Amino acid sequence: MRLLLIHSDHIEYEARKKTKVAEEDAVPKDALDEALAVFCAVESVDEENIEDAVRQAADEIVTTARQLGTTNIMIYPYAHLSSDLASPEAAVNVLRGLAETIAGMDGFVVKRAPFGWYKAFSLSCKGHPLSELSRTIVPGEGAAAPKKEIEH
Amino acid sequence: MRLLLIHSDHIEYEARKKTKVAEEDAVPKDALDEALAVFCAVESVDEENIEDAVRQAADEIVTTARQLGTTNIMIYPYAHLSSDLASPEAAVNVLRGLAETIAGMDGFVVKRAPFGWYKAFSLSCKGHPLSELSRTIVPGEGAAAPKKEIEH
Ligand SMILES: [Mg+2]
Repeated sequence: MRLLLIHSDHIEYEARKKTKVAEEDAVPKDALDEALAVFCAVESVDEENIEDAVRQAADEIVTTARQLGTTNIMIYPYAHLSSDLASPEAAVNVLRGLAETIAGMDGFVVKRAPFGWYKAFSLSCKGHPLSELSRTIVPGEGAAAPKKEIEH
Repeated sequence: MRLLLIHSDHIEYEARKKTKVAEEDAVPKDALDEALAVFCAVESVDEENIEDAVRQAADEIVTTARQLGTTNIMIYPYAHLSSDLASPEAAVNVLRGLAETIAGMDGFVVKRAPFGWYKAFSLSCKGHPLSELSRTIVPGEGAAAPKKEIEH
C-alpha cells in the first residue's frame, strides 16, 4: 500500500460521477478541518494479507496523527500513487478496514471518500516540514518502509 | 518521470522553509486559476536523456492542456510520486526545461513552484472524468506510457 499523508487546514470532496467500479452506499460529499488527509493506493501485494496491511497502515496513520496533534482523519482512495493496484474489491475492503480500525480508537474522527467515483476535491496543505509524508506498507514486514520525509 | 495532472479551478503555493537541496532565485509564492497543475517527480532514468524526457513531458502536458481547453500551467515538483528519484541538480534542470519549453509555445502561461522547499499549497480539482491523469515518461521511448485514466 502506498500512503501520502498531508496535514491539511481543510479537505473536502464531492463525488461527481461513477466509474465502473464505483462503491455503493458511500457518503457523496464531506469535509474536515485540521485533518490528516490520507491518500491511499491499495496494491496487489496487500491482497496477500489484508488484515496485516490494514493493521500496519492504521498504525502509521495514528502515529503520524498523534505526532501532528490532529484527531481528524480523511481516508481518500488515490490510485495514481501506484502502478500495481489491488482488485477493486480488495481495495474497498482495505479502505473500509482502515476507517473502521481508526474510528474504533479513542478520540479519532474518521471520514472516508468513496472508491471508484470521479470526485471534485479541494485541499490545503499546511507546509511545515512534516506536513507531507509518504509511506510504503508491505504486509508481513515488521514495519512500514521506506519513509521519505523530504519534500521537493 | 512521473506526472500527475490535475485540472484545477485554483492552485496556489507559498514556499515556507528550505530543505538542503533548495533551489535559489525561485518565485516564493504564486497562484493560477483555471489551470493544469502538473505534479512532477523527475526519476533517475530521466538523467539518461534529459532533453528527451523534457520533450516528451512537454508534449504530454501541452496535449492534455489543449484537450481540457486550459492555457495556464503550474509545474509543481512532487517527489512523493516516485521511489527512484533523479539527483536534485538533474531534477531542477528538467523542471526548468519543462517550464521554458511550454512557455515558449504560443498562448501558454507557465508558473513553476520551487524545488527543495517545504511549501504550503492549496488546490481544487474540478472532478470531471479527465481532471486527474497520471503519466509515466521514459526517455528514449516513442511515447509516454502507461496512461491511467480511471480515478479511484
Ligand atoms: Mg473514534
